[in-house]
Amino acid sequence: MKKVHIIGLGLLGGSFALALKKAFPGIRITGTDHNQQHQEEAVQIGLIEEIKDVAAPDTDLILIATPVHTIPDLLRSVLGKIDKNTLVMDFGSTKAQICQSIADHPNRENYLAAHPIAGTEFSGPKAAIDHLFSGKILILCELEKTNLELKGKAYEIFEALGVKLRFMGPMEHDNQLAYVSHLSHISSFMLGKTVLDKMEDDKNILNMAGSGFSSTVRLAKSSPAMWTPIIKENKSNILEALNQYINNLMEFRDEIVQDDYKKLFKKMEEINRIGNLLNLEK
Amino acid sequence: MKKVHIIGLGLLGGSFALALKKAFPGIRITGTDHNQQHQEEAVQIGLIEEIKDVAAPDTDLILIATPVHTIPDLLRSVLGKIDKNTLVMDFGSTKAQICQSIADHPNRENYLAAHPIAGTEFSGPKAAIDHLFSGKILILCELEKTNLELKGKAYEIFEALGVKLRFMGPMEHDNQLAYVSHLSHISSFMLGKTVLDKMEDDKNILNMAGSGFSSTVRLAKSSPAMWTPIIKENKSNILEALNQYINNLMEFRDEIVQDDYKKLFKKMEEINRIGNLLNLEK
Repeated sequence: MKKVHIIGLGLLGGSFALALKKAFPGIRITGTDHNQQHQEEAVQIGLIEEIKDVAAPDTDLILIATPVHTIPDLLRSVLGKIDKNTLVMDFGSTKAQICQSIADHPNRENYLAAHPIAGTEFSGPKAAIDHLFSGKILILCELEKTNLELKGKAYEIFEALGVKLRFMGPMEHDNQLAYVSHLSHISSFMLGKTVLDKMEDDKNILNMAGSGFSSTVRLAKSSPAMWTPIIKENKSNILEALNQYINNLMEFRDEIVQDDYKKLFKKMEEINRIGNLLNLEK
Repeated sequence: MKKVHIIGLGLLGGSFALALKKAFPGIRITGTDHNQQHQEEAVQIGLIEEIKDVAAPDTDLILIATPVHTIPDLLRSVLGKIDKNTLVMDFGSTKAQICQSIADHPNRENYLAAHPIAGTEFSGPKAAIDHLFSGKILILCELEKTNLELKGKAYEIFEALGVKLRFMGPMEHDNQLAYVSHLSHISSFMLGKTVLDKMEDDKNILNMAGSGFSSTVRLAKSSPAMWTPIIKENKSNILEALNQYINNLMEFRDEIVQDDYKKLFKKMEEINRIGNLLNLEK
């Protein structure tokens, strides 16, 4: 791994750069970001060596780590310019439309669709941390469509990042992620909104908030520039998950109205097992 | 602080005992719990010196740390048996019905209504930790109704716990807590249910869950034995908050259906400020 080019120098792109620098001393990383300030910060804090619009011809890997709606165009453009030995990977949070957009591209085998389940509620190059991916899940889609040698290169990188790999189809990916990621961001944003609205009457209400509230509302700090496109790209799956969630809340609400506390107790008891399933103790 | 009696030896009662032992060497703590096993564990792991149904006559403080629905009866019974120098305090998560239940009690001035905004999603004496209250908010209601000397005793304890005090009326307390505590427990339980239901079709879905999901669903591990009574006691306030939350989710859902991404972006951007308000960076 000698030359890497990163398009999008935010939390994911920046953290990827830091992890590679640690794992491959002497690596040369170039990059670009449509945000001028982020681009300059990325050089200043040493995420990349040089700002470059286009990757050098002998680049080992080009990573696209921009908001999902920009990825199909970028990906087609990048795939049109590379040579045979360059692997192209993206970190988009939805995968179906991206995979479909380059399905028939002559250089399809140079591409690998990836999604790291890693992030914080912060964004931008300054939020980058070298261990962001360590121990985290990385989902790969349509691995069979990537060239064998380039797959070898990819595995070298994944080992350096310390990720745990999962494999699934892009449609399945987008549906499941709507439930375990996109929905919890929306629930958190709306919890934040509900309390902020209440704050107009009770301005000191947040003084009463404990760590439980902070934990559930943490994701409401997430970037709208990242999340608006995810909602758009994954609209139908998100609507499915969101409607299920609203139905569950309304059913719970109705059980409170009906004073059906036995049912509420039993329901909460059944849900408790999610703690063990997620190893929340750890 | 020489003699303390604790009714309810769970997470709160147990952690209170540990904090007092640290702050007041030589203190003698007795206690009781309707759960036989918890009671014995509390002695075994050294939370209390001795199991006792009733406090000794010269006890400095009796703490009631049981589920909220049991507090009014226990409190009346305890207040009926104490001498003038004993302070009685409860840690119930709702305060209006409790304060009302002893409003006319001849020993009202021996009572102080308290609610520490502290806890974890675990319960029982083994979950007790000595620093649970350190740096946390503790809300006091109707402080003016407590005897001056006993208030002095209470302040000595609060200083030892390291809590930050807040003062408010019991009605205001219950309404605000519905928003910043009770609602986020329900939102978390229902998020857990939505994903568990989905798991019936996609049994590996939790393999895809990242730290964001874990954070929002953490409270779904909370004890139904604690939360069912809270929902019952604070029914009207919880319904108010829950209905606001459901309305906000439905509005967000409708904006997705209508592809109104500009509005969604702006909305999420406005909610972002809750991060700064809660100092979530820290």
